[in-house]
Parts: sequence; structure tokens; C-alpha cells
Amino acid sequence: MSEKLLPKQFINLSSVISRSNSPIGIFDSGIGGLTVVKQFLACLPEEKIVYFGDTARVPYGSKSKATVIKFALQNLRFLLQFDPKLIVVACNTISALALPLLRKETSLPVIGVLEPAVAKALEITRNQRIGIIGTIATIRSKAYFHLIYRRRREISFFARACPLFVVLVEENWLKGKIVEDICHYYLKELKKNKVDTLILGCTHYPLLKKIIRKEMGRKVSLVDSAEEVVRMSKEILKEGKLLVSRTKPAGHHFFFSDEVPNFRKISRQFLGRDFKAKIIQVDQNV
Amino acid sequence: MSEKLLPKQFINLSSVISRSNSPIGIFDSGIGGLTVVKQFLACLPEEKIVYFGDTARVPYGSKSKATVIKFALQNLRFLLQFDPKLIVVACNTISALALPLLRKETSLPVIGVLEPAVAKALEITRNQRIGIIGTIATIRSKAYFHLIYRRRREISFFARACPLFVVLVEENWLKGKIVEDICHYYLKELKKNKVDTLILGCTHYPLLKKIIRKEMGRKVSLVDSAEEVVRMSKEILKEGKLLVSRTKPAGHHFFFSDEVPNFRKISRQFLGRDFKAKIIQVDQNV
Repeated sequence: MSEKLLPKQFINLSSVISRSNSPIGIFDSGIGGLTVVKQFLACLPEEKIVYFGDTARVPYGSKSKATVIKFALQNLRFLLQFDPKLIVVACNTISALALPLLRKETSLPVIGVLEPAVAKALEITRNQRIGIIGTIATIRSKAYFHLIYRRRREISFFARACPLFVVLVEENWLKGKIVEDICHYYLKELKKNKVDTLILGCTHYPLLKKIIRKEMGRKVSLVDSAEEVVRMSKEILKEGKLLVSRTKPAGHHFFFSDEVPNFRKISRQFLGRDFKAKIIQVDQNV
Repeated sequence: MSEKLLPKQFINLSSVISRSNSPIGIFDSGIGGLTVVKQFLACLPEEKIVYFGDTARVPYGSKSKATVIKFALQNLRFLLQFDPKLIVVACNTISALALPLLRKETSLPVIGVLEPAVAKALEITRNQRIGIIGTIATIRSKAYFHLIYRRRREISFFARACPLFVVLVEENWLKGKIVEDICHYYLKELKKNKVDTLILGCTHYPLLKKIIRKEMGRKVSLVDSAEEVVRMSKEILKEGKLLVSRTKPAGHHFFFSDEVPNFRKISRQFLGRDFKAKIIQVDQNV
């Protein structure tokens, strides 16, 4: 991964070395960010996670920049109470719209899902034609486009919002003719434009990976932000000597702003075991 | 319409007669309630409307009862500032989950979309088999079921949540093979159960009326809450001598908690002319 992608604030982390046993704070607009937690548990199993999902106000993907920023700052302030060593924004919409302002709010490293995904896409594309799918807000923000174009000008870039995908995933409706048809409807232009790399620019989309791969064909590489953000987080923690030193199993915490029906099932599916969802309010102290 | 459906609070309205020139306050989780406003403008064109749509936190249909009640109370308190003579809850989810608590909050008549739709359905069904489609929260609440069963025990009742419908409408994706297939997927059981009356239990659904009618067949009557709620509101205003006495055109107001992209287009489509959307915050004074 190119070092150029790391924001300045990551360079000198010596002041926070004592925080290595602190948790990693992860937040998302809802439950989608649990795909990122899943990767953390797999790759950095000793790290303690504090997760917040704003299920009372989900989805963010159809909302304005001002509203997404307001909600994201509230979420961040909630997580800062746990004295984390790293903040991970496990949501493409927030990463696309609010990252600069979140980084102004804290001196901690704040890592979004866009930069790691873009780094990976630039690393693996062969024909320099990259596609991105995401929510309406993510696509409208052109954040992926700007990030890619700043790194490499000769890239041809194609974007498509796929608003039905989130509902399909939340309904657990992941296969069959109708889902294939919806997938074809959304992706046909990207296919026609011969992208060889497709960024799954929404944390829900990896759950539709099989059907997206079937539509795009085996030769198109799918970039899963969840995998890439954990890889980049590990590098940052290593570089800052912030990797955890404890050996006993970490106790994770999962907070949501509204009840999550079937959290037990979701917890098992995403996280491999039962966790308890705690309900809290974050919109009181704007 | 049976008088039994009118809540107690509607009986003695003499204390608020002086309010006849006050506006009608209408609120919804988003823009769906504009289908109700459209009917008000058509049937009661002299009445002044103050509308609030909670676009920052939409949708409510996938959220818990506690959260829907909290948001609904905030929305109501915002509208009460305009000294309305009647409150219309133009959202099935809020009507299903929060109506009793909203009625405790104010002495004004508060009318939801469920009661008028149920009254109509009971009036027109011939085989006593009624279907209802709506959001996950509306269907899960069983509010329609309880309301119908309280009036007439011999009704056979069939319910189906159709979460993709709202996104389809908001994408303006209202026809074609895929939409027909989704429609068939959701409605096939209702059709099999031979309902002769189907309540469109979400303000977005009337925009899919054509395709729903095609799937269900001409013999099934579709009940559009928007039409029925205006009919009931007119009765209540008339009964309470609260119909407006002004003759000059009324000035309506449209407030939202987040920007509404394409509001001008939506305004023309729903309301027949250009209105301005004003953005305000309602979550500060819980």
C-alpha cells in the first residue's frame, strides 16, 4: 500500500503509544459495519472493539451532506468516551462525506473505508478501468472519483448507485431470479464499460458478492472495503506501536441507537458468537 | 362511515370552534405524506396546510416502537407551534405505533391513516377477506389487525410487509418486468388467499397502484389511505364547525428535517405547483 495514502496525522503517533490496550472504536449508520468488525475479529482477534451503529436514523445513504456530518459527529463523540486508540468509520457514506470534519474533531487517527479500497483498486487494476457501486449519497459525493483521480489521472472511472441492494441485504434476500435481474439492471453499464475492478462501496454489498460476481464475470476483481480497511488499520497500529499487548480475550461492546431485531442471529452470522446489543441515545448532545 | 370509528375526543369540539381559520398540521416520516396533502388540496382547497416530513431520519418503517414514538412526539410538538386545528398523521407506521400517545400529548383531534382505511375496507369487502400491505414496522405492530378485529370478528385478515416498495417509489422505478416480478413475489400469497379488498398501508404505495392492480386483478378493490383520511378529516371538521371560512387562497408551508432533492419536481407532481421546502431541526427539544 502506498504511504502517500496515509493522512498526515498518522505519521507521529508516539504521543499515544500508551494507548495500545485501548479499544478500537468503529461506527456505522447501522449494522452494515459489522462486516468490518468481522474482519477485525479474524485478523486482529486480540484487539478490543467498541462498535456503534446508528440504527435509529439509518440509512444515511439517501441523506444530505449536512445531515450526514451532523450525525457522524454525534456518533464520533459517543465513541470518544471509551478512550479509543483508533477510530474506524465503517460506512462508505460517512467516509465519503464527513471524514475531513471527523479528523478535525479529534487528534486520534480516523480511518475511513474509501482510502483502503482505492489503494487496493489502484494496485490490482490492469486495464485502468475501475467501477464503483454505492448508495446515492456516496455516488453523488464523487468522493471515490476525486480520491482516485488525485492518485492516478489516467484511470477511467464508472459509478452507479444501487439503492435497492441495502434493502435486499437487510431482508436477507440474497439469491434468485429477481435479485439477479436487479443486479443485472444496476451493473450492465459497468460491464459494458469493461471495468476490470469493481469497488463494493457500501458495507452491505459484500453479502451480495456471489451474485455480483456472477453478473460481472470471474475476470472482474471485486474490492471489499471491509478487508482493506482492516489491512490498513493493522499497518497504522503497527507503525504507531499501538498493537495490543494483552493476551487474555478482549471484551467487545456493541451499541445501537435503536433495537436490532434478530441481533443474536446477526451476531452469530457476522461475529461467530453471541454478543449483546446495548441501546443508547447519541442525539442529545449535538 | 361508522361513527364508532371516531375517537372520543372528536365528539365535543365546541371549545376549538374559533380555530376554523387555523391550519391543518400534517406530518410524515418523509415525503410519502405528500400523497395525503395532494388529496387535501383537491378536496379541501381553501384549507391551509402546514406539513412536516422527517427526511433526516426517514424511514420509520424498519425501526422500533420506542424510537417511532420518540420521533413522532418531536414532530407533533413542532407542528403544535403553528396552532393547528387538526393534526393528521400521514404515515402508516406512526399511526400504527404512536397514535394513542400522540392523542395524550394534545387536546386537538389527531387523525391517523389506519382508522379511515379500515372503515373503508369494512364498507366495501363482500367476501370478508381483507389484505394489508405495509412496512415491516406497520405489519409487525398488528395495528390493522386489532382495529379490524375490534369492529368485525368474522373478517379473515392477511398481511404482508413489502420493504422494497418504498425504495422503488423513491427511485421513481414504477414499471417494467422487475417491478412486476417484485410485486408478484410480495402479493402472490394475498392473491392465493382470495382477498377482495387490499389496503395500501403505506403512503408510498398508491404510486405503485397500477402495477398492484395488474397483479391482484380488477376484482380486488384497493383502499388508498390518502383518499380516506381526507374524507374523514372533512367529516370531523364539518362536525366541529371547523371548516375554514376564509375565501382568499391559503398559504401552505412545507418543512423538512433534511434537504429534499428535486423538491420542485416532487412539488409539481404531487401538489400541482411550486412550493418551497424549508429545512428545520426538530430533534433538539425532546
